[in-house]
Amino acid sequence: MTLYFNLAELLGSRIEQGLYRPGQRLPSVRALSVEHGVSLSTVQQAYRLLEDNGLVSPRPKSGYFVAEDRLLPALPDISRPAQRPVDISQWEQVLELVRATPHPDVIQLGRGMPDVDSPTLKPLLRSLAQISRRMDMPGLYYDNIHGNAHLREQIARLMLDSGCRLGPSDLVVTTGCHEALSCSIRAVCQPGDIVAVDSPSFHGAMQTLKGLGMKALEIPTDPITGISLEALELALEQWPIKLIQITPSCNNPMGYIMPEARKKALLTLAQRYDVAILEDDVYGDLAYTYPRPRTLKSFDDDGRVLLCSSFSKTLAPGLRVGWVAPGRYLERVLHMKYISTGSTACQPQLAVADFIAEGHYQPHLRRMRSQYQRGRDLMCDWVTRYFPPGTRASRPQGGFMLWVELPESFDTLRLNRALLEQGVQIAVGSIFSASGKYRNCLRMNFAARPTAQVEAAVRKVGETALRLLDAERTGG
Amino acid sequence: MTLYFNLAELLGSRIEQGLYRPGQRLPSVRALSVEHGVSLSTVQQAYRLLEDNGLVSPRPKSGYFVAEDRLLPALPDISRPAQRPVDISQWEQVLELVRATPHPDVIQLGRGMPDVDSPTLKPLLRSLAQISRRMDMPGLYYDNIHGNAHLREQIARLMLDSGCRLGPSDLVVTTGCHEALSCSIRAVCQPGDIVAVDSPSFHGAMQTLKGLGMKALEIPTDPITGISLEALELALEQWPIKLIQITPSCNNPMGYIMPEARKKALLTLAQRYDVAILEDDVYGDLAYTYPRPRTLKSFDDDGRVLLCSSFSKTLAPGLRVGWVAPGRYLERVLHMKYISTGSTACQPQLAVADFIAEGHYQPHLRRMRSQYQRGRDLMCDWVTRYFPPGTRASRPQGGFMLWVELPESFDTLRLNRALLEQGVQIAVGSIFSASGKYRNCLRMNFAARPTAQVEAAVRKVGETALRLLDAERTGG
Repeated sequence: MTLYFNLAELLGSRIEQGLYRPGQRLPSVRALSVEHGVSLSTVQQAYRLLEDNGLVSPRPKSGYFVAEDRLLPALPDISRPAQRPVDISQWEQVLELVRATPHPDVIQLGRGMPDVDSPTLKPLLRSLAQISRRMDMPGLYYDNIHGNAHLREQIARLMLDSGCRLGPSDLVVTTGCHEALSCSIRAVCQPGDIVAVDSPSFHGAMQTLKGLGMKALEIPTDPITGISLEALELALEQWPIKLIQITPSCNNPMGYIMPEARKKALLTLAQRYDVAILEDDVYGDLAYTYPRPRTLKSFDDDGRVLLCSSFSKTLAPGLRVGWVAPGRYLERVLHMKYISTGSTACQPQLAVADFIAEGHYQPHLRRMRSQYQRGRDLMCDWVTRYFPPGTRASRPQGGFMLWVELPESFDTLRLNRALLEQGVQIAVGSIFSASGKYRNCLRMNFAARPTAQVEAAVRKVGETALRLLDAERTGG
Repeated sequence: MTLYFNLAELLGSRIEQGLYRPGQRLPSVRALSVEHGVSLSTVQQAYRLLEDNGLVSPRPKSGYFVAEDRLLPALPDISRPAQRPVDISQWEQVLELVRATPHPDVIQLGRGMPDVDSPTLKPLLRSLAQISRRMDMPGLYYDNIHGNAHLREQIARLMLDSGCRLGPSDLVVTTGCHEALSCSIRAVCQPGDIVAVDSPSFHGAMQTLKGLGMKALEIPTDPITGISLEALELALEQWPIKLIQITPSCNNPMGYIMPEARKKALLTLAQRYDVAILEDDVYGDLAYTYPRPRTLKSFDDDGRVLLCSSFSKTLAPGLRVGWVAPGRYLERVLHMKYISTGSTACQPQLAVADFIAEGHYQPHLRRMRSQYQRGRDLMCDWVTRYFPPGTRASRPQGGFMLWVELPESFDTLRLNRALLEQGVQIAVGSIFSASGKYRNCLRMNFAARPTAQVEAAVRKVGETALRLLDAERTGG
């Protein structure tokens, strides 16, 4: 499985990078076999995978060609949030989203739920069951406040891929990334402090700022390169910012990966103004390219980056296994972790540790990356096909979220209400802003295996939006 | 099993209440059989259980007699903490306690760990394993922010025993009682606010106040009747108190159960001064008498009591399944829960729900109550036997913690250090005070089945204390 996957990823990333252009002929099966020292059938498998992903198309007797450019929705412009610190609102809309219990009659395009049906997750379930049968019942005891030592070793090993050299004692296990975020924010900030955030930004992190009494300063953000360093620098000059909270790799909700040079420049800026950085990397392992992008943390030489992540997006959210590498804030984060939940549930920690140690994590990731990439392509196609003309959309480089921008005057809150009657749920754009901007935007999840049912749901979103827009234009 | 247990409990509570005095002859087996409509062997089983618990002793051919008064350590005096709001200290000592990883060579008398080896917990482990094998994989999904609905139904049913009429929608599931406490405090208080606490008080709750920036006002507390209402009233007159944080049933660390009349009076006081009450009931189900004591919440008619609990003491702490009934603060608590951990790990919730629904909870509690009561009796005996003369100790009515008071000048921090070298760990008294009082006190756990090894550990504590006291007296 590994060989052809690796080859497909290599070719896929060359196509994505434009080394092979749309319509161009790709190297022959024989040439690739010689070049990479793999069998002919391995190359054929790799091409078939790329074909499944819509990246190449075979022409009889001529070989494989890069697929012609798909029609893609235009990108949103760089965001223009209010450039002053604001008190965060929108809790009611977030509550509506997170109160929803999974229901077979509702397609939940709104939530940050990965696909947990993959057969590559089977060993995790096996491990969960085995732990319950062990005579020493490790799942029942209190854990050390740092979290399970075996799990922390595995996480430290995984993070080498992102350029981080961490030891198990640099890590604190948390109840999902949520707890990592709130402990980190509380370790650095006091109520009333100003936190700079990329914008749009994950609603959970923003509500955490709200709940802790911080003010958010939303920084303009580009849908391809991420937070505007120019705007950020202006803000750092103007305001006493304590913390920069950011999701630079496989951003939620936009899906961009901030280029490495900009990551380094961001860190330099933080050093110059002596500000801490909270780096949310929860989708980072789901970048469509391999090796995965480097973290800000990997460039951090004075411990100012608090790197937060979890297995909620890569494995399953119900496990609630997250972690934080808090750098110089370790002691403060430990205190915050202690008062927040005491310790983290044991059995899920042990199962995740086993899953990684037994070598199941990377094959699972490979499969999910490829599935999500295909999901993105289909979702973009559907938006082009079913959404009102002029609709813009992000171009995710990882993860499983698409950010969609409708005309300026549009209200996705109304859209969501109309959709719920039809059994479809989306995430409204306003919850991704501290001050309720992005009312004309929405976020959709493309993690689920693409079925006719999912396509029909996306179609309903587009057609309902069209109907509401028409009604608006005719004053209805 | 139920019949003889019930009878033993009834007789035991009559003895505890003094209806039968030490040395007095108890009703004959035949008389009890007729009176209660049970078989002779049921009565005999009941008497044998009471004998095991040291409450009665058989005399050949004469029947059963109430056991002669055991020599008990004297009770501590009512506590005299500093009666002004203070910033909370002692984090370093708490961290030392919670950083300790279970180790086979160390007897941890210091931690709040129940006995999880009981065969009555087997169905819980079975259920944890079964959930992992279910095809719909409920353990992997995000849960509703309130927590699993089935579990909340079961909790609502259990709480009827404490006089509470709660519906599932009145409850929020949390990651252990810790999260219930911190969400509750944050729902009511702002940083800088004053919180009145019983004293000594659970270190976790106190550290939560510290981490959230509150000040603690420690109220004198009686080792039998709990927080002094007179002192509390004075404090309420003098200070702008926002919240009363209290563990009235099976108090940690003292083990008392506040009498019902005083619970009602406390609530009246809170109403008069319009203050919220955080009621920590995490040991409440482990009262040695049945039915369990009523909660403050059960008398609350205007929603000012936030009742917090978990299954960490009754089942197992590694599950991290707690809950809160926040009364009028429900919406605020939901927000705090969301920002704290998003949602609670699913599989342990489902397993606990099954365990209760299938009828395993009450038999398990009966067994643990009886084991812990016997543990208390033995621990008190050991303190009498091995500790320095003049040592005082609490008289727990539930739970598995003993509070021990050594002479005024003694320093249990030094004792703990000396003990760690001998493979024994205690909880030092100072962590149970906001301002580091109770330096001459310690807390020991008597949950573990009483073995020679445990007795040897307690003996080491007493003998090391004696040695340090002697050295102190001779100026060493």
